[in-house]
Amino acid sequence: MSTPNPSAVETALSPGQLREHYISVRQSTRQLVKPLPAEDQVVQTMADVSPTKWHLAHTTWFFETFVLAAMDHRYEPFNEGFDLLFNSYYQGAGPQWKRSKRGILGRPTVATIEAYRAHVDAAMQQVLGDDELSCAWAPVVEIGLHHERQHQELILSDIKHVLATNPLRPIYRRSADGRARAADTSPTREWLDVAGGVHHLGFDGAGFCFDNELPRHRVLVDDFQLASQPVTCREFMEFIDDGGYSDPRWWLSEGWNWVEEQSAKHPLYWELRGDKWWQFTLHGMEHIDEAEPVCHVNYFEADAFARWRGARLPTEAEWEIAASDLEVAGNFADDESFHPRPIVDDNSSSTSNHRFFGDVWEWTSSAYSPYPGFRPWEETLGEYNGKFMCNQYVLRGGCCATPRELVRPTYRNFFPPDARWQFTGFRLAK
Amino acid sequence: MSTPNPSAVETALSPGQLREHYISVRQSTRQLVKPLPAEDQVVQTMADVSPTKWHLAHTTWFFETFVLAAMDHRYEPFNEGFDLLFNSYYQGAGPQWKRSKRGILGRPTVATIEAYRAHVDAAMQQVLGDDELSCAWAPVVEIGLHHERQHQELILSDIKHVLATNPLRPIYRRSADGRARAADTSPTREWLDVAGGVHHLGFDGAGFCFDNELPRHRVLVDDFQLASQPVTCREFMEFIDDGGYSDPRWWLSEGWNWVEEQSAKHPLYWELRGDKWWQFTLHGMEHIDEAEPVCHVNYFEADAFARWRGARLPTEAEWEIAASDLEVAGNFADDESFHPRPIVDDNSSSTSNHRFFGDVWEWTSSAYSPYPGFRPWEETLGEYNGKFMCNQYVLRGGCCATPRELVRPTYRNFFPPDARWQFTGFRLAK
Amino acid sequence: MSTPNPSAVETALSPGQLREHYISVRQSTRQLVKPLPAEDQVVQTMADVSPTKWHLAHTTWFFETFVLAAMDHRYEPFNEGFDLLFNSYYQGAGPQWKRSKRGILGRPTVATIEAYRAHVDAAMQQVLGDDELSCAWAPVVEIGLHHERQHQELILSDIKHVLATNPLRPIYRRSADGRARAADTSPTREWLDVAGGVHHLGFDGAGFCFDNELPRHRVLVDDFQLASQPVTCREFMEFIDDGGYSDPRWWLSEGWNWVEEQSAKHPLYWELRGDKWWQFTLHGMEHIDEAEPVCHVNYFEADAFARWRGARLPTEAEWEIAASDLEVAGNFADDESFHPRPIVDDNSSSTSNHRFFGDVWEWTSSAYSPYPGFRPWEETLGEYNGKFMCNQYVLRGGCCATPRELVRPTYRNFFPPDARWQFTGFRLAK
Amino acid sequence: MSTPNPSAVETALSPGQLREHYISVRQSTRQLVKPLPAEDQVVQTMADVSPTKWHLAHTTWFFETFVLAAMDHRYEPFNEGFDLLFNSYYQGAGPQWKRSKRGILGRPTVATIEAYRAHVDAAMQQVLGDDELSCAWAPVVEIGLHHERQHQELILSDIKHVLATNPLRPIYRRSADGRARAADTSPTREWLDVAGGVHHLGFDGAGFCFDNELPRHRVLVDDFQLASQPVTCREFMEFIDDGGYSDPRWWLSEGWNWVEEQSAKHPLYWELRGDKWWQFTLHGMEHIDEAEPVCHVNYFEADAFARWRGARLPTEAEWEIAASDLEVAGNFADDESFHPRPIVDDNSSSTSNHRFFGDVWEWTSSAYSPYPGFRPWEETLGEYNGKFMCNQYVLRGGCCATPRELVRPTYRNFFPPDARWQFTGFRLAK
Repeated sequence: MSTPNPSAVETALSPGQLREHYISVRQSTRQLVKPLPAEDQVVQTMADVSPTKWHLAHTTWFFETFVLAAMDHRYEPFNEGFDLLFNSYYQGAGPQWKRSKRGILGRPTVATIEAYRAHVDAAMQQVLGDDELSCAWAPVVEIGLHHERQHQELILSDIKHVLATNPLRPIYRRSADGRARAADTSPTREWLDVAGGVHHLGFDGAGFCFDNELPRHRVLVDDFQLASQPVTCREFMEFIDDGGYSDPRWWLSEGWNWVEEQSAKHPLYWELRGDKWWQFTLHGMEHIDEAEPVCHVNYFEADAFARWRGARLPTEAEWEIAASDLEVAGNFADDESFHPRPIVDDNSSSTSNHRFFGDVWEWTSSAYSPYPGFRPWEETLGEYNGKFMCNQYVLRGGCCATPRELVRPTYRNFFPPDARWQFTGFRLAK
Repeated sequence: MSTPNPSAVETALSPGQLREHYISVRQSTRQLVKPLPAEDQVVQTMADVSPTKWHLAHTTWFFETFVLAAMDHRYEPFNEGFDLLFNSYYQGAGPQWKRSKRGILGRPTVATIEAYRAHVDAAMQQVLGDDELSCAWAPVVEIGLHHERQHQELILSDIKHVLATNPLRPIYRRSADGRARAADTSPTREWLDVAGGVHHLGFDGAGFCFDNELPRHRVLVDDFQLASQPVTCREFMEFIDDGGYSDPRWWLSEGWNWVEEQSAKHPLYWELRGDKWWQFTLHGMEHIDEAEPVCHVNYFEADAFARWRGARLPTEAEWEIAASDLEVAGNFADDESFHPRPIVDDNSSSTSNHRFFGDVWEWTSSAYSPYPGFRPWEETLGEYNGKFMCNQYVLRGGCCATPRELVRPTYRNFFPPDARWQFTGFRLAK
Repeated sequence: MSTPNPSAVETALSPGQLREHYISVRQSTRQLVKPLPAEDQVVQTMADVSPTKWHLAHTTWFFETFVLAAMDHRYEPFNEGFDLLFNSYYQGAGPQWKRSKRGILGRPTVATIEAYRAHVDAAMQQVLGDDELSCAWAPVVEIGLHHERQHQELILSDIKHVLATNPLRPIYRRSADGRARAADTSPTREWLDVAGGVHHLGFDGAGFCFDNELPRHRVLVDDFQLASQPVTCREFMEFIDDGGYSDPRWWLSEGWNWVEEQSAKHPLYWELRGDKWWQFTLHGMEHIDEAEPVCHVNYFEADAFARWRGARLPTEAEWEIAASDLEVAGNFADDESFHPRPIVDDNSSSTSNHRFFGDVWEWTSSAYSPYPGFRPWEETLGEYNGKFMCNQYVLRGGCCATPRELVRPTYRNFFPPDARWQFTGFRLAK
Repeated sequence: MSTPNPSAVETALSPGQLREHYISVRQSTRQLVKPLPAEDQVVQTMADVSPTKWHLAHTTWFFETFVLAAMDHRYEPFNEGFDLLFNSYYQGAGPQWKRSKRGILGRPTVATIEAYRAHVDAAMQQVLGDDELSCAWAPVVEIGLHHERQHQELILSDIKHVLATNPLRPIYRRSADGRARAADTSPTREWLDVAGGVHHLGFDGAGFCFDNELPRHRVLVDDFQLASQPVTCREFMEFIDDGGYSDPRWWLSEGWNWVEEQSAKHPLYWELRGDKWWQFTLHGMEHIDEAEPVCHVNYFEADAFARWRGARLPTEAEWEIAASDLEVAGNFADDESFHPRPIVDDNSSSTSNHRFFGDVWEWTSSAYSPYPGFRPWEETLGEYNGKFMCNQYVLRGGCCATPRELVRPTYRNFFPPDARWQFTGFRLAK
């Protein structure tokens, strides 16, 4: 790796700020895994899920590989065997341990990985303490920190799957006392009218963005209507009650195959006990609050619901146009509720019930494709986003497990249409 | 099925013409399978491939179900068991025999299916001989005839796979003598410059189109350049020689997985003997003519080649804009060569070497999505196209196995990105 | 192959008799496939099943390879490509087309295979018309004829699976009018008492036997009791009615896994319509005659039934000891009923109701192992039997699809414990 | 469970001795897992392997279920969810967590399982401290202790697979200094001549045996010769060097399929570095000592070697006849070497080089079948051995990971023919 600089990456931070930021992000990851015994951190319940300790090591390997080793070819890695184990998918950085086999590795232990993190953190802080080096490598460090933020979310969604699969149903952390409960009043769904025409899509602010948010470009859209809020559990229960999961009319062909193979009957983590719906949360099994946005549905389920309701999913352009001027505020990982909050009517203002950020990622009907003129980052980091632009759909808005700092109106998340172990919901459009 | 009329379907034919057309299309299907012994017509070499005799029966079932039985509920089917066996994927028309199991059915025999075809043809001709009925049902009959044309192409691409898989390498039909051979002159690749701006996409002519070509709508595109011809075998051999199949840099992540799982090293049906490339064709094994458009590559291979060459695939909008005013002329199934023709330089005019239609279907970079405001046909026929709009890419232009009559500049073909048993190639864009 | 002579093989036939016998066996195979249209002969419904036309070609390849080509290295094969396609499993005779892929081959057609048979038959008759050659090669020819007899049975059991899998339920041949029906009298089950001690096991008569029936050797057995007849459908229905398929107590661990994976609830080809049991036969769907020996059960089902009944399966030694002096008479393929006959009480003599041969193969509790001192035939034919002595169980007695000529008291048939598409039943021991 | 008494089980211990023995066995299990961090104890590398912590819990569940809960229906289990998780295969004791999914459970943690063990141990010691109760339940306790001994061996063989699969190649425990090394003298292989005739097979001594070692019965065998020692690595290398793994002549048909599917080229855990063979051991990677008995070969490999060498594997009867009067002495788990010891020639006596016990389990050619008149233990414990008598082969003699206390000349171990993660070798017979 000759050049440290994915050229498009800007950073707004001074060297001192960057160093502090580095420490803070890394520290918050450690905080996140504190409730987990070592045994939980080893387990992989399906190929999509990675063990917690793998996330801890992989994010560290990222800094070791793309900063420390890239900067100084004499750098001695903490353990040479880790390159194989903790490279996720960067072909440019060498071979990779098979993804689906991450859960058959007892070693390195959690303690060894903590030592690995400490070792790399020490070296990184030396780099970041040197103003010249810090400036030169700031773009990669920025990427590494956003990368670590993304893995903080994955740690939460992956461990949720691990705990939910265990019939003992262990909890991640008890719920805080004051978690909001549904009010008696129904939330007010509004249809927002948005005027069509030529709009701009993609990032153009100051500071960091991923390569897939660029270049900013023009799009032509028709007038459209967008729901002011995501679809709630109450609405989704109506779909279930109306036989939604047993009527092929609502489903894409691949979606119907998925329904039949999985015998799918409800969102992931839902469970009917008597006539009450429960769900597994990071706080354990709980009654479903019907005013919550529905969560852990995949693209097929979102699309089928929309068709059943006589509506459709928004395109990513429609979503971004509607959300571009809104404040990025909502229920994020920083709030430590790790669960979507019910939508209650507070009547305080006309827009107070509009929800575009936080709670649940929202499926759009847009296949994940490059923006016109897209250029991936240079060198190996070019593999970060671009090579996944196939058979995936774009999601927008962030969720209750996403660090607030990651989210922008232009941020493009993406998953295959059958994935539902992330905190994924959706809103309707017309 | 209460209404016969997928409302958007127009037909330009008089009742008499429709009847003649029906006879002609059905007859041409029979012509196509003449070279095949009954044994070849039974075989299914992979889940995507259907046996020839299945195609013969399914296209007949289409008319029986959507015209004869829909028109008259007292209609007695030729054989009640055929509903299960020959319904392809219409949930609205009842259960279906598993697609991947079509090749384990010896019965009905080819002779029985011929009798089935004769039976339905007789009934259909009665309908089409009645002016009133003919007018009422013309839209569905039109769909059925375009449907049968599509299956004529599938009969050819499927049997090619069946024959190629057999180590005895049987041929479908000997090559006619005068098949064009490569001239010594290299074909002239030009870059066509197309001005961006607001263009229209989708069908608006007279006559038939599929529901997925509608509604006609506006799109905004940048200026772009499009190659005047598809990529040739000569160019693709350079990619192979340059190690294209062993360098993950060029490949989408899913594409690279495909390369590794399949140990892919060249297009389907290619075979290296000594230092010469051969390929299996419907005329048997032949030397590869380097001037031919490369064929039987999937989206991953097309996309990797483009990246290697520093170019990209066109979007479907770009392709349609460039092709919309061209004459639909080229090497189609009607020419009975059933193989792409070499591109030779004839210098006769500035556009004489432009090839947009025939020879090979061209992969575009556009995921197969509904046009804004898309409405599927009514009732069960609504399943024809809409429910496949997921994890597929659009292809344009028709190929040497496509009946000429099917092809329009607005026609949208679609296949998953790993499919390559169709006659699929691509052109470059910038 | 240097020597023609699997040394242990004896033949009792004169050259003239051998030639006649050859013609007769080959002719009877042709007779057997007459009711089948070409399409039926192509199909493979599971890996265990081979297409009819494959059997026709493989038995021919056997003579071509082990006689014609072995005798004369200048022999020109009918088609060189057939070696790959029609070698079943003889590693010593070259590579083999994958067994599970036999059903994806349209070519060679049935007509071509008929020509292949005629070609090889002509050459073989020349050999057999030469007394010297005939004597020299008689042992291999004998093996080839017994081999063809074995495949005659497989043609029947395989096509039964092919036809039964087809929802149109085609029949192989209508039932002859006078097929025996159950009398009102229940058959008399007796327990035969057999004295233990040192007995002899294995072939020692004149004429042909397979290598796995040798050497004749001594075994020590305790006194035992053997049922005089196989278990009937009536008895097996009691097992079903008593919940036999849902109670793990009766089943081997692997058997229970099989039950759960297959959701097995009854013998293969059985179907409950209303409160009546039907079964698919080579004559089509028929009521089950309760007095028939139960058929199409695997080792797991036989063993579970025996445990439920407080009995056990006999060892192969016990079976052979009890049967060694009985006449080999019963319902074989030669009778062309192709279905087990009901057991009726005729009171004519004390042993008239004893059934040891024909109707159904009988599972024994003996794993298929070599007899002490076993020596496989020499050269490539040594692969005929010996290499399958692993994870299979021995069956005895022949069935309604076995040519009478194949059956001896010492004949050892063998199948894996989960196989049940053969005509397999069982008797009890104590 | 109404009766505590698998009637055939005898115990020679007084109540006081039994209690002491219980404490000692349980304590030695704990000792065995001391070197393993919690992370190693979670992992399952293939379906056959169970996580260490599962073994710790399952052996405890055995006492809880078959003693504590069986004795007193008011007994409150430590955790009701453990029944599902730690029941291995006893259908009579309720449903079981899927075996292949044991490695996706982080909980219960190792610490919780230690508490579980302590809880059950306390209750068991109360029972065993009561003379009356102790006598009544001694048979089941004896079974439980032998059961735990068996799992001690599985802990070692399973963790060996876990560690060997990890590319970091962690070690279980460093080798003790004085591990025996090969002498220069070649070990003397002798052929022991054993006279045939009627012999007795099966247990008849005092004290404990498993149900599958009974009843003692007579067998008739021919004279035979048995090698005095197992086959060594040196001999097996000759087989490899002679192309043994690429010549189908030596292999059973299923064995050859296994070779091709696995691309097998050498015993499990072997690795060729340059021209030297290394192997993974519980002490890490080591040079292969050629005088060691070859280990980690499956039945197919043992059988192929024997055929290549012109010999055969002994039957279990032959093995037991030859070993029945020998002292049960050798290299067992108690020696804590956990690896087969080289065979060195000490010339001290004519039988000093005879090795029948310890080092490696020895494959016999006998399919695992019930002895004539076999009766499984009563009730649910009847599932212990009997239901596995299918598609497995008998092994004899114990190995370096087997607790000495388990081994008897009549002890029948059994595994499927493709298993080789156990410490399995073999000896030749003629």
